[in-house]
Amino acid sequence: MSGALAELYRQLHAHPEVAFKEHRTAAVIAARVRDLGYDVTEGVGVTGVVAMLRNGPGPTVLLRADMDALPMQEKTGLPYASQIDGAMHACGHDMHVTWLIGALEVLQHEKASWSGTVMAVFQPAEEGGGGAQVMVDDGLFTRFAVPDVALGQHVTPLPAGTVGFRPGAFMAASDELRVRLFGRGGHGSRPEATVDPVVMAASTIMRLQTVVSREVAPIDTAVVTVGAIHAGTTSNIIAPEAELLLTIRTFSNAVRDRVHDAIGRIIRAEASASNAPAEPEITVTMSYPVLINDPIATSRTIAAIGAEVGAEKLIEQPLIMGAEDFGTYGTVAGIPSVFWYVGSTDVDVYAKAEQAGRLDQDIPSNHSPYFAPILDPTLEFGIRTMVAAAREWLD
Amino acid sequence: MSGALAELYRQLHAHPEVAFKEHRTAAVIAARVRDLGYDVTEGVGVTGVVAMLRNGPGPTVLLRADMDALPMQEKTGLPYASQIDGAMHACGHDMHVTWLIGALEVLQHEKASWSGTVMAVFQPAEEGGGGAQVMVDDGLFTRFAVPDVALGQHVTPLPAGTVGFRPGAFMAASDELRVRLFGRGGHGSRPEATVDPVVMAASTIMRLQTVVSREVAPIDTAVVTVGAIHAGTTSNIIAPEAELLLTIRTFSNAVRDRVHDAIGRIIRAEASASNAPAEPEITVTMSYPVLINDPIATSRTIAAIGAEVGAEKLIEQPLIMGAEDFGTYGTVAGIPSVFWYVGSTDVDVYAKAEQAGRLDQDIPSNHSPYFAPILDPTLEFGIRTMVAAAREWLD
Amino acid sequence: MSGALAELYRQLHAHPEVAFKEHRTAAVIAARVRDLGYDVTEGVGVTGVVAMLRNGPGPTVLLRADMDALPMQEKTGLPYASQIDGAMHACGHDMHVTWLIGALEVLQHEKASWSGTVMAVFQPAEEGGGGAQVMVDDGLFTRFAVPDVALGQHVTPLPAGTVGFRPGAFMAASDELRVRLFGRGGHGSRPEATVDPVVMAASTIMRLQTVVSREVAPIDTAVVTVGAIHAGTTSNIIAPEAELLLTIRTFSNAVRDRVHDAIGRIIRAEASASNAPAEPEITVTMSYPVLINDPIATSRTIAAIGAEVGAEKLIEQPLIMGAEDFGTYGTVAGIPSVFWYVGSTDVDVYAKAEQAGRLDQDIPSNHSPYFAPILDPTLEFGIRTMVAAAREWLD
Amino acid sequence: MSGALAELYRQLHAHPEVAFKEHRTAAVIAARVRDLGYDVTEGVGVTGVVAMLRNGPGPTVLLRADMDALPMQEKTGLPYASQIDGAMHACGHDMHVTWLIGALEVLQHEKASWSGTVMAVFQPAEEGGGGAQVMVDDGLFTRFAVPDVALGQHVTPLPAGTVGFRPGAFMAASDELRVRLFGRGGHGSRPEATVDPVVMAASTIMRLQTVVSREVAPIDTAVVTVGAIHAGTTSNIIAPEAELLLTIRTFSNAVRDRVHDAIGRIIRAEASASNAPAEPEITVTMSYPVLINDPIATSRTIAAIGAEVGAEKLIEQPLIMGAEDFGTYGTVAGIPSVFWYVGSTDVDVYAKAEQAGRLDQDIPSNHSPYFAPILDPTLEFGIRTMVAAAREWLD
Repeated sequence: MSGALAELYRQLHAHPEVAFKEHRTAAVIAARVRDLGYDVTEGVGVTGVVAMLRNGPGPTVLLRADMDALPMQEKTGLPYASQIDGAMHACGHDMHVTWLIGALEVLQHEKASWSGTVMAVFQPAEEGGGGAQVMVDDGLFTRFAVPDVALGQHVTPLPAGTVGFRPGAFMAASDELRVRLFGRGGHGSRPEATVDPVVMAASTIMRLQTVVSREVAPIDTAVVTVGAIHAGTTSNIIAPEAELLLTIRTFSNAVRDRVHDAIGRIIRAEASASNAPAEPEITVTMSYPVLINDPIATSRTIAAIGAEVGAEKLIEQPLIMGAEDFGTYGTVAGIPSVFWYVGSTDVDVYAKAEQAGRLDQDIPSNHSPYFAPILDPTLEFGIRTMVAAAREWLD
Repeated sequence: MSGALAELYRQLHAHPEVAFKEHRTAAVIAARVRDLGYDVTEGVGVTGVVAMLRNGPGPTVLLRADMDALPMQEKTGLPYASQIDGAMHACGHDMHVTWLIGALEVLQHEKASWSGTVMAVFQPAEEGGGGAQVMVDDGLFTRFAVPDVALGQHVTPLPAGTVGFRPGAFMAASDELRVRLFGRGGHGSRPEATVDPVVMAASTIMRLQTVVSREVAPIDTAVVTVGAIHAGTTSNIIAPEAELLLTIRTFSNAVRDRVHDAIGRIIRAEASASNAPAEPEITVTMSYPVLINDPIATSRTIAAIGAEVGAEKLIEQPLIMGAEDFGTYGTVAGIPSVFWYVGSTDVDVYAKAEQAGRLDQDIPSNHSPYFAPILDPTLEFGIRTMVAAAREWLD
Repeated sequence: MSGALAELYRQLHAHPEVAFKEHRTAAVIAARVRDLGYDVTEGVGVTGVVAMLRNGPGPTVLLRADMDALPMQEKTGLPYASQIDGAMHACGHDMHVTWLIGALEVLQHEKASWSGTVMAVFQPAEEGGGGAQVMVDDGLFTRFAVPDVALGQHVTPLPAGTVGFRPGAFMAASDELRVRLFGRGGHGSRPEATVDPVVMAASTIMRLQTVVSREVAPIDTAVVTVGAIHAGTTSNIIAPEAELLLTIRTFSNAVRDRVHDAIGRIIRAEASASNAPAEPEITVTMSYPVLINDPIATSRTIAAIGAEVGAEKLIEQPLIMGAEDFGTYGTVAGIPSVFWYVGSTDVDVYAKAEQAGRLDQDIPSNHSPYFAPILDPTLEFGIRTMVAAAREWLD
Repeated sequence: MSGALAELYRQLHAHPEVAFKEHRTAAVIAARVRDLGYDVTEGVGVTGVVAMLRNGPGPTVLLRADMDALPMQEKTGLPYASQIDGAMHACGHDMHVTWLIGALEVLQHEKASWSGTVMAVFQPAEEGGGGAQVMVDDGLFTRFAVPDVALGQHVTPLPAGTVGFRPGAFMAASDELRVRLFGRGGHGSRPEATVDPVVMAASTIMRLQTVVSREVAPIDTAVVTVGAIHAGTTSNIIAPEAELLLTIRTFSNAVRDRVHDAIGRIIRAEASASNAPAEPEITVTMSYPVLINDPIATSRTIAAIGAEVGAEKLIEQPLIMGAEDFGTYGTVAGIPSVFWYVGSTDVDVYAKAEQAGRLDQDIPSNHSPYFAPILDPTLEFGIRTMVAAAREWLD
């Protein structure tokens, strides 16, 4: 098994495809999984693939892998490095796909020993495109099934052969906002005849700092980042407007709501302080829910994985500020979901870096152009964890 | 004449009385001026004194001197220095009173050569108390007369024997505001349960800087100063409110209106940005109009003074950011008014300081504890200028 | 036992004494505990009392109660309410003292069944006075003993008969800063001749918001509050300086160091941006370390308490932003320390408020003028928890 | 005369050329003026033209016209509107060229009645390119002559047939700065690992407002505008740097120096407050001196113009915030210079707009796509004013 899957992984890695462009990837998946005897539907949510294995009565278990690559240049120098200019599997989605195909193969082989339905979801556009929601909107839960549990796993720079988990809130909800602030343009030497959007933006940005410093409880967690600001073209013209791009990260709906309210209130009030001729325009351009691991389902799933790989391989994780749209499945369907990390760093390399206090510096993390999971034992290990998790929920 | 008046000046200087407490001063004035044959009314606007000399048909000319001292300790070491602890004639109002009494004496003596009415106004509380308005409110223009012109003069650290003038806007309008910003208090470690008035105040203050930097035309003149801020009592309690005290200086109603509008707008918007539980409270605690010298009346008056003292003694002045409530008379009565400066610094001392580029450092200015007009020639000179100005307007 | 101790509690409650003034309280304690056969020393750290019971070989266990009241007016209306105007036991230190005396009585009675040394510390000035450090500085660990463990407990508005605990960081480190910002004063209408400390302070305050919003990791916890700001006396004078009072709360030395560095850096840079004529003056006026419950010692101690009162009475607590100087003992002596909460609210009242979602509103918390622990069962329960904890560590 | 010159004007207007691209314009000028018998040199400062008429002993008088158009689309709909896409004579430099050619013609004709040297300077790139300095650097005063006085005039939307003048400071010094603020980029959800340049820029912008509000005397005039700000590309990445483009306008070297000092100080301090990894980079990209009309030379020149066109046509102007590099000639050569405005708006249109209080709205100003001087009488009138001014200085 492993030789063919390793080859598949290398092929996927060499041919990365960015969000909603995963045509070759989807075709490879569909062919493989159809060969395994799954009922395969392509084009669910643009390029998504759904594979069903109905195996008698019992629970329906959603297993998810995301497929998209990142728009960046690979620098790993691997023999199977990206052959596509400006695209790279720098977040391990190629591994996720391979794991899931491997797991589907095992589940098919072991079919006699379980009962229920496997619902494999190969999702496009996890990286900022909200592919989960797009698949949901394209009928994932109406055309196929409403599952009883959603399971997903992700490669991470923990030591290979370990599993990272966290019950409850795990990864942040992420919202991205585009804000247009409207002033009134004019000559740079006559500010009194204008409403200066640069000053309006500056005061707004300073005020937005108070959302986290004053309105979020210290023991809660939130980030409000103004990632980009653009206004004006030259020094002596006051521009008519300014644009801000914001990221918000939170871990609970209560905090998220309060942060959104505060941001909207501040932006509108600062426009009003500037005597803006028009209300600011605030657009949510992307929104991922907080990824919450149902505590009971997590306890059960992680225990099953521990039974398979050894409880000493389980490492509890802190809150992760990164975002994932895996949470969408559980949130929309109203079902428990469990997401965990699978280590992909050589254990010796990891130990050395840890000893030197240089984990951040020496281990390429996800989204680094040097990100490169080691195949052995990561590939087989991730198949075992996924199968163990799925079998726990199937009768 | 001069000997008795010099003695009067020294007596006044030694017995300074602050705003609305000018009882001794008013009594001295009333007695003197009544002796001169004027029709004297005391207690106009608390401690104000009005002296009328009706001398046949013709114009009514208002001549004004302010009477109040400042609440500060004199450090001049003069033989006739203040005998009152914590009070000092540091702005020369004692000189103004003496000048006006001297001028009334001359006008009485020269009565045969002019026709009309002299309306001498000895005003209380010029220093922040708005004594002019208080006299107006107490019937100055209804109980006595509506004058045709208002004339006033002020000692200043120009060389003694010179006159400073400026047609049009001369001294700034001054408005003082008290602002209460309402937050919600609480424990310093739980900002999320509060509305922090310190942050609200800080953002408001930063934003108020934009009134002058962005909303007032560069060639216009305005000042917005937050002179005081007070909030909280200790480090670990978030206070329920903050108080700001503001001074505004402007030279035109258009600018003044725009500045007031902007300040109100900003204060309200910043409270709203903070989610304040109550609207801020903005109180105007003092308001002096811009002192505008009617251009035609000024030209005429200053020419008359120049004819008396020599045109080479006339010095055109820049805009003065200081404020004076003399403008109230002209503004309320709808009549032209003219206000000028009379130098009171020894000419040699002045010349030396000027040469050294140390005018600001070496010449004690008004409100300095060392402020000390030289009596000779200042005393006689100021009587001559006032009489010349008054005679110009009397038939 | 309980009748006499309840009376003692009511006496202490009726006679509150604020920080370093606990003379009557200390005398009462010393007499009582000396009667029990303890070796008592008074005046350790001004008003502190140390009581030793050396009972053969074995560990030394520090048991701590704080003694001081708060400078506030009691409003409970209790028959035994404060008889001292402007002072109140609003934080339950009277209960802590009573508990510890009760526990010392039990330990004396049970002397035959344990071996080791009891070191009872009755501490002054927990409320902002740093009494723990003052006792340490007065030789607590050199004149008496270096204990093997430090134990303390605190009343809190949990249901009476329950125990709140948290391994690891529990209560925040607290630092209080006084900051003087130096400008150059002058007339409000001539800002160009001054360095405006109000603007300097406002910009500093806005910038300080970025310490939490940008420099502390979102999953870490910190508070930076400017609790008070004072500058200027009137609207038209620019003051020479501004004063800020800050509170900082953190839970780790790394975060604390970073926050302190950032605050110092920002204050100095903002003074420099204003062209301040002198460096700001930053004074640490108070500093409590983070209260860290040694995880192993906590596990052991809380298990012992659970064995005594029932494991179902144990409630894990979140991080508490409040501060306590109990942490000083462990930090200075380099020993594990354990601090826990003991509920003091009537269980029915608590349940009703909880159901209504009005815990914060309906249950008077520590420092409220209505704070009133119910004596039964709080008094006896707290003695049992303290004895159980102490016995766990004595042989 | 006027017919040919009107045709020349229309030709120039239809063929606008932007800064340093005035090849056709320069060639037309050179040919015309050479025909008049002047000694013409082309290519002085890229495209500048210098024409000398040495006519015996006596003063050398520099007469200047700028030649460049603006990079904007004309919308006047005139028959002779711009035939060049994206270029327009919207600031009347075509008129200035025509006036100067017309004046040179007259001066040639009247040669017998004056003695001295006419030095006509046709300058490129007045609009932001600093063409005056470029001509100076290319030897204007070393290769040709050091003049005794520099004269220039400019069309403006005053009523046609009037002259606007102002002794002393007239048009602002203008400096343009490019500021790069260096932070440290990173993920938007991990601000603690970055130095956020957006917050650094925002605080800098707010602080820059205090330069005008606090550091420039209220009766002085200055503008500090941040015309453009650019940082970041997307919401969830913190960018490594931010760029600001600033315009500064002042009217005296003292103010200019203070403003520059304050800006530099603030930018550096705010970077330091942010813990920036590198000093900000501040580049002066353009710098025009204040245009100062020598009071005595102005009085003499404007009197001569008044004698020619009628004193009632002379209108004293306020300070103009716009900038002009004509001041460069006088500043560099150390000679008096005089610059005045010539009205170009139809008198009836002007009167109507003035009555309606709509001058700003109804009269297209310089740099408007609708700017269109009326030819009659503007063309002839401007020749008369230039000749009168020049003749005043020639013996």
